[in-house]
Amino acid sequence: METLRVDLGERSYPIHIGEGILSLAGEFLQQAGLRGKVAVVTNPTVAQLYLDPLHEVLTRSGFAVTPILLPEGEEHKDLKSLSVIYDRLIGERFERKSSILALGGGVIGDLAGFAAATYLRGVPYVQVPTTLLAQVDSSVGGKTGVNHHEGKNLIGAFYQPKLVLIDIAVLNTLPRRELVAGLAEVIKYGIIDDPALFGLLEKEMQKIIGLDRELLARIIATSCAIKARVVEKDEREEEYRAVLNFGHTVGHALEAVTGYTGFLHGEAVGVGMVKAAAISMQQGFCDEKDFARVRKLVEKAGLPVGIPSDVRMQDLIQSMEVDKKSGGGKIKFVICAGIGKTRFHWLTPGEILGALGA
Amino acid sequence: METLRVDLGERSYPIHIGEGILSLAGEFLQQAGLRGKVAVVTNPTVAQLYLDPLHEVLTRSGFAVTPILLPEGEEHKDLKSLSVIYDRLIGERFERKSSILALGGGVIGDLAGFAAATYLRGVPYVQVPTTLLAQVDSSVGGKTGVNHHEGKNLIGAFYQPKLVLIDIAVLNTLPRRELVAGLAEVIKYGIIDDPALFGLLEKEMQKIIGLDRELLARIIATSCAIKARVVEKDEREEEYRAVLNFGHTVGHALEAVTGYTGFLHGEAVGVGMVKAAAISMQQGFCDEKDFARVRKLVEKAGLPVGIPSDVRMQDLIQSMEVDKKSGGGKIKFVICAGIGKTRFHWLTPGEILGALGA
Repeated sequence: METLRVDLGERSYPIHIGEGILSLAGEFLQQAGLRGKVAVVTNPTVAQLYLDPLHEVLTRSGFAVTPILLPEGEEHKDLKSLSVIYDRLIGERFERKSSILALGGGVIGDLAGFAAATYLRGVPYVQVPTTLLAQVDSSVGGKTGVNHHEGKNLIGAFYQPKLVLIDIAVLNTLPRRELVAGLAEVIKYGIIDDPALFGLLEKEMQKIIGLDRELLARIIATSCAIKARVVEKDEREEEYRAVLNFGHTVGHALEAVTGYTGFLHGEAVGVGMVKAAAISMQQGFCDEKDFARVRKLVEKAGLPVGIPSDVRMQDLIQSMEVDKKSGGGKIKFVICAGIGKTRFHWLTPGEILGALGA
Repeated sequence: METLRVDLGERSYPIHIGEGILSLAGEFLQQAGLRGKVAVVTNPTVAQLYLDPLHEVLTRSGFAVTPILLPEGEEHKDLKSLSVIYDRLIGERFERKSSILALGGGVIGDLAGFAAATYLRGVPYVQVPTTLLAQVDSSVGGKTGVNHHEGKNLIGAFYQPKLVLIDIAVLNTLPRRELVAGLAEVIKYGIIDDPALFGLLEKEMQKIIGLDRELLARIIATSCAIKARVVEKDEREEEYRAVLNFGHTVGHALEAVTGYTGFLHGEAVGVGMVKAAAISMQQGFCDEKDFARVRKLVEKAGLPVGIPSDVRMQDLIQSMEVDKKSGGGKIKFVICAGIGKTRFHWLTPGEILGALGA
């Protein structure tokens, strides 16, 4: 088992990574100072696989467990699902020292985290991510929130968990499409910060997709460590944290215009990273070889690399303008300045449009 | 003009108190580093009095103003009104550096503040309280939120404003009932922290209700200073900040069981303070003279002191148990240990019930 730490002063917390550590959840929650009531927020698919054993280990450690099941899918990451959580917490008389545990992927983590941030003005919560994407990205760093029909994550809060538990064994039951979607974020960490990680992915992609334990543990720990360092430098995304949005400007827009049903988040980020690399090349920040390596690795992971022909470019641009990273009419873009290096660059919609067709 | 400061590290902010300072709002917002778009959240009554002049001074300082009018009353401090704000902010393409200005009483301040806390995971906001209650209490300290039909402020966030502007001149247009309701919180500061303030109120209550400028400025500044010191010690109400809830446990319950329409918040707190003093006396923490002074001052201000006969005691108790300050079956009560002194004491519903009929 490996333990990383996100160092944020009084908001610091550990990330435990290992195989089978779900069975130790009770002890870890106790160690984090939690007790009493805990709401396990999850969805039917994950519940069927992991709710009973988790319920049992938490009960054995003295917790009173309230399962809260939400419908599955990004389209349910909304104020309505949030209200379902509030109603249950209030109905079960959850108090300030009660806690919330997110058992699921990014949708569950973001919803449960935002409920924790806002119920009684904040109760403790724990992330137990069950998808690769949530394990390497959304469970770490305290971004919580819900979507609005005009765009993703427009409503939310920065609110750190007390603890993140990453059980690698749960990836055995993850559909391959979801595993691959998670790899998009791992590739991203390579592009923005770690040429060695990028190289490892180029070399070992097949074994990783084949669920090689040792490689999975390595890329997850490396990804979480990179994310933790970025979040420590800039918790509330004043500036630097936005490097994590590499590939996400186009990615988010693609998800929005396809109604959050056409692409998994990681798939949209796959396309977005290829487009961001193309823009970086066109703007002279990286060379063609870098672009080709990005495109090839995204493809090798089994991720999509192009925008479907029925998506209108104007809709994409309009969606980007609503995005949080826009300002003064220009859009703040994370540029690849060679594998492992990034910089920010403000682009007009026209400049982006030019590269999207590429 | 007087300027106080709430000292919370990087979340510190000034409170400007003076007559006619609404006309300087543009300059103050600029000084606070704000620029670009500003949404003025208000209600029709306040808008009719102050929106046009405020709109003008903000525009003159280069701000692009979006007025957002919400229906009036505590019963509209809910997720629905919050959605109205979100929709407008998104529709007007508000960005992370855009800001929100709350122009109104506690309902507007709490709603606008919570919208600011959660739109794009947090945008800056300014409090311009137009009721005495909001000026001495809710506009300072960063408590934001909305009600749930099961209880008050069950959903919310701690999120500090960038600036508080208190214009004493607006009290001229405040209905007398609202002015009196605000005095409940001023009396509270006297009880929990400041025998001299309490004595001043005993001596000068008639002049204060008659809108004596000098006295108003003095009691508002004294109240804000006490609140600021409490918030600095315990921003997120881990423990000490709860002293501000003196009179509020019974007060909140009374508001809830009367559907947030029977009492103004300050009126309910008036009753709550008398009941809290009665419980304090029964439990041996203060003597009969203290109780009598509290009761007499609340009465002198023109506030109610008793629970209406049609309110069922069991409903009040049940409502208190849902309240955020309950834990382990007991309710955390703020006790008066003599004028100017408080302590916490956990009470069973039975112990509270005994004093409620008194």
